[in-house]
Amino acid sequence: MPEYRRDSIVDRWVIIAPERAVRPLEFSNVPRVARRLPCPFCEGNESETTRETAAVRTAGSSADGPGWRVRIVANLYPALQTPSAGTNANAATPSEFDAARRPAVGRHEVVVETPNHTVAVEEISADHWRTVWRLVRERFRSLRDLGECRYVQYFKNVGQAAGASLEHAHAQLMALDVVPPTVEAELTAARDFFDRRGACIFCDLAERELAAGVRVVEVADAAAAFCPFASRFSSEVWVVPRRHVGCFSETTDAGLDGAVDLLHRTLRRLERSSPNSAYNVVLHTAPFDSLAGQYYHWHWEILPRETTAAGFEWGAGIHVNPVAPEAAAECLRRINPG
Amino acid sequence: MPEYRRDSIVDRWVIIAPERAVRPLEFSNVPRVARRLPCPFCEGNESETTRETAAVRTAGSSADGPGWRVRIVANLYPALQTPSAGTNANAATPSEFDAARRPAVGRHEVVVETPNHTVAVEEISADHWRTVWRLVRERFRSLRDLGECRYVQYFKNVGQAAGASLEHAHAQLMALDVVPPTVEAELTAARDFFDRRGACIFCDLAERELAAGVRVVEVADAAAAFCPFASRFSSEVWVVPRRHVGCFSETTDAGLDGAVDLLHRTLRRLERSSPNSAYNVVLHTAPFDSLAGQYYHWHWEILPRETTAAGFEWGAGIHVNPVAPEAAAECLRRINPG
Repeated sequence: MPEYRRDSIVDRWVIIAPERAVRPLEFSNVPRVARRLPCPFCEGNESETTRETAAVRTAGSSADGPGWRVRIVANLYPALQTPSAGTNANAATPSEFDAARRPAVGRHEVVVETPNHTVAVEEISADHWRTVWRLVRERFRSLRDLGECRYVQYFKNVGQAAGASLEHAHAQLMALDVVPPTVEAELTAARDFFDRRGACIFCDLAERELAAGVRVVEVADAAAAFCPFASRFSSEVWVVPRRHVGCFSETTDAGLDGAVDLLHRTLRRLERSSPNSAYNVVLHTAPFDSLAGQYYHWHWEILPRETTAAGFEWGAGIHVNPVAPEAAAECLRRINPG
Repeated sequence: MPEYRRDSIVDRWVIIAPERAVRPLEFSNVPRVARRLPCPFCEGNESETTRETAAVRTAGSSADGPGWRVRIVANLYPALQTPSAGTNANAATPSEFDAARRPAVGRHEVVVETPNHTVAVEEISADHWRTVWRLVRERFRSLRDLGECRYVQYFKNVGQAAGASLEHAHAQLMALDVVPPTVEAELTAARDFFDRRGACIFCDLAERELAAGVRVVEVADAAAAFCPFASRFSSEVWVVPRRHVGCFSETTDAGLDGAVDLLHRTLRRLERSSPNSAYNVVLHTAPFDSLAGQYYHWHWEILPRETTAAGFEWGAGIHVNPVAPEAAAECLRRINPG
């Protein structure tokens, strides 16, 4: 029977309504993303992108040419104004709405995860996936050291239903001069918990989920993957490092590699569980300028798009999830991620 | 250049990034929804649905048979437990997460808007559209009088990208024992504004939008349609009655007909502006049990899905909208809704 569940961290309620999973969907699977050629992200087509801001390259290769393994470039269609470009608020004529607008300043970059036209994480080796994330962490550190931004939002869109417009495996970074409201809400909850209990709310949650067991997908030394109690999306999974670190950019090599391995295995499980699966991966971390390191805890959220947020979700702000996280976890556990 | 804009009512920021509209989308239009036959909502197939809870019928026709013009039935795949059914929290074994769950009690109904297999509002006459909304208001009143629920969330999903699973024109009602968080946030903002200014924030907004003019789609005696300053979705439109009424169920016949006519014309504009357009319509109203009638103001929000909420939207909680509302309004104004 449908039930309301409150998220373990923030004051967000969802409806878990397993009966709805059997409703007749009239449409079949949409392919992930139609292929466009030539692909601007493939090796050899570097001139189709902006200049790289970071890369992992073979010795002797030149920036913006072939010979790279992972490459970060500015987004050709940025949703933010680069600080150096001189900001502009589009205010042709002053209006009384002007107090509610300001330039969206920051950097919007693309992490091209492989030089060849690979689509799924499933086809990327665990070793290469570590290389990708070492570079992402390096770029987080560089953006922090530039001193322009408060927060870097990492996100990965896979498949058209998840908002991807290009097929080639990639992720995006948006360096913001604000803290996202989602993270602000988590920070508030984490600070309250720390004040009351003297502990990290995410460490506490991971422990409780491991004790409960029913929503756990996989546990490694470095991290735990589980379907959150109040999953918004069916097969939603959080991957939480087991060692407490507030800010992603401060993770050690060993901590990062171990957590990245579990993320890799979890995405493989997801991709193998449903063909053409569309999903987002987002990273939540403490802002660079906060003192939240003690009470906040960086983590990933994997948000699959088996269902579409519709009028009720947008109108009421309450997600209806047709798959109980306990059932999703059981299904994902059974899949071989090797 | 991209800019942040704050919503006129609640503390929600979006990024308006018109440059992104030119980014190359690799995929083309997906058809609204593939057709499934026989359609459970077509006249003659009443046995495929649950029993009707309200209907507009020709004299002499019997409930749950042919002879209706608009029909409301319980959703066959409800996201809520009907109160009478005996509630159940699925708690097989007690767990420490139990404090964060409770039965999702309420009624989940479908408004079948036409007896024949019409898909678009464009194909529904203005007169019939009034009949639809008179019945919706009647059902709001009945649900209020039942005394079980605090709020009825009306929403209409058109097209697969907007979460529709059936093609036949329909909307849904979810009678909830909670006030949705989206509406709670609007209520708080409206109450604050009323305390400070002694006026309704929505009346004030409509006046300011009519004065500014640049985002107005159409103004009628009964209501105003405009693209909100901080539109989350491209071509987002709000339709706001010009006479102050807090709760939708208390709207007069004349007020309702006039507002419904403008909604009809606005949806026609939208459907004619882009073939196979997918969108949601949601209604926000004062809760039945609140004293918000003085300071809150019911209205519709039309949320098109030309773009997909992706990793950034879900991860950061900030929408990126590639079409400035001023440009969207200009485009919609030019379309003949007649």
